[in-house]
Amino acid sequence: MSGWLAIAGLGPGDNAMLTGEVREALALATDVLGYIPYIARIPARPGLMLHPSDNGEELDRARHALRLAADGGQVVIVSSGDPGVFAMASATFEVLGECQDWLRMEIRVMPGITAMLAAAARAGAPLGHDFCAMNLSDNLKPWPLIEHRLRLAAQADFAMAFYNPRSTARPDGLGRALAVLREECEPERLLVFAHAVTTPQERITTVTLAEARPEMADMRTVILVGNKATTRVGRYVYTPRRSQ
Amino acid sequence: MSGWLAIAGLGPGDNAMLTGEVREALALATDVLGYIPYIARIPARPGLMLHPSDNGEELDRARHALRLAADGGQVVIVSSGDPGVFAMASATFEVLGECQDWLRMEIRVMPGITAMLAAAARAGAPLGHDFCAMNLSDNLKPWPLIEHRLRLAAQADFAMAFYNPRSTARPDGLGRALAVLREECEPERLLVFAHAVTTPQERITTVTLAEARPEMADMRTVILVGNKATTRVGRYVYTPRRSQ
Repeated sequence: MSGWLAIAGLGPGDNAMLTGEVREALALATDVLGYIPYIARIPARPGLMLHPSDNGEELDRARHALRLAADGGQVVIVSSGDPGVFAMASATFEVLGECQDWLRMEIRVMPGITAMLAAAARAGAPLGHDFCAMNLSDNLKPWPLIEHRLRLAAQADFAMAFYNPRSTARPDGLGRALAVLREECEPERLLVFAHAVTTPQERITTVTLAEARPEMADMRTVILVGNKATTRVGRYVYTPRRSQ
Repeated sequence: MSGWLAIAGLGPGDNAMLTGEVREALALATDVLGYIPYIARIPARPGLMLHPSDNGEELDRARHALRLAADGGQVVIVSSGDPGVFAMASATFEVLGECQDWLRMEIRVMPGITAMLAAAARAGAPLGHDFCAMNLSDNLKPWPLIEHRLRLAAQADFAMAFYNPRSTARPDGLGRALAVLREECEPERLLVFAHAVTTPQERITTVTLAEARPEMADMRTVILVGNKATTRVGRYVYTPRRSQ
């Protein structure tokens, strides 16, 4: 059995942010699986089979990849950003125990530049002190848990990054999240809305909590929230390393 | 004024995790500045001046880099991991306002693979759900704040990553942090001690909270703490995407 499985991160969009090891795994692959728009980023070549699938099919995609690798394929599952952050690595380990052969296989997770760190780099350094990353989608957890976690994160004075803050199927959550922040934080708190970071559609907007509106985000946005010391210098936003 | 400044992440150690844009910035640079062991990772070449400096000299290093770039240099400040995570990006923006010329300069933060995500990839996917990143050093914040934040993070059921958990100058903090976790979490909670991740000295150890000892960490360790759903499958540790 010479097959292997890599679960690889493509970074946020710009191929200049790919790592060497991910580039190499893609060059060796016989099969690449992933969500349709991520597969669209992989150039076709002879000997490579591309397997696009839809959002919400993560567990089936993982099983398909594991079967291909167990049959001797050199298989890469791609996520945008980092596969370990709200992406395909957890989905794959969730099904790994279903088959003894899969447990013996060579599996490697290959990190990528995750959206919040690419967004932070574009804005300056808003995640330069203790911070948290939260998925604001309530597809996989109840909304009261999101709200509870958000409130504690604000009380702990973490800087924050919100993934999946808003979609057409979930238009209302972000307004509720902003309401929690308004109860816990001062109106001058800085937020960065980073849309389609590192792509030609990139748009980075910094506003105060008082100015923030849910309509500023869509499904390609990551939102960064500063801590109480986060400040501006010139066109940059940063969080100092020191805190009281 | 044709100079520029890049604040670039070298990733955790293995050069296969460098991004293309960081590789290119290093190839163009006239000057590279950074902490001594990170500068040791940059190959010497004609036309490139290497400027190693010691730990604790971050603000002076940033000023030096800004002056070199203002004089027309093509300057890279390197951090290991990601420059925006407990590293040189915040330090640079902290001094940027000291000089009007610096504010007009071309400055670019180039993300890298940060230690917690490289460690998570090696272990499986322990940061696969909402998580936080904390610097356990009390050099730049008071210990009671660390303890307060840690307690709220545990109550929020975040998975966690601890940077700088222990050094010879700070041998005792980690024991106190583990004591806080023991008050808030069950003894079976999974922790990953990741030492020198992606280097030849890499050592990844998974233990329960009951088994965890401060001596398992040193200054090259990042510690990952699962949430209450984090589990093992085969030799991997992962946090499910779903939570109650």
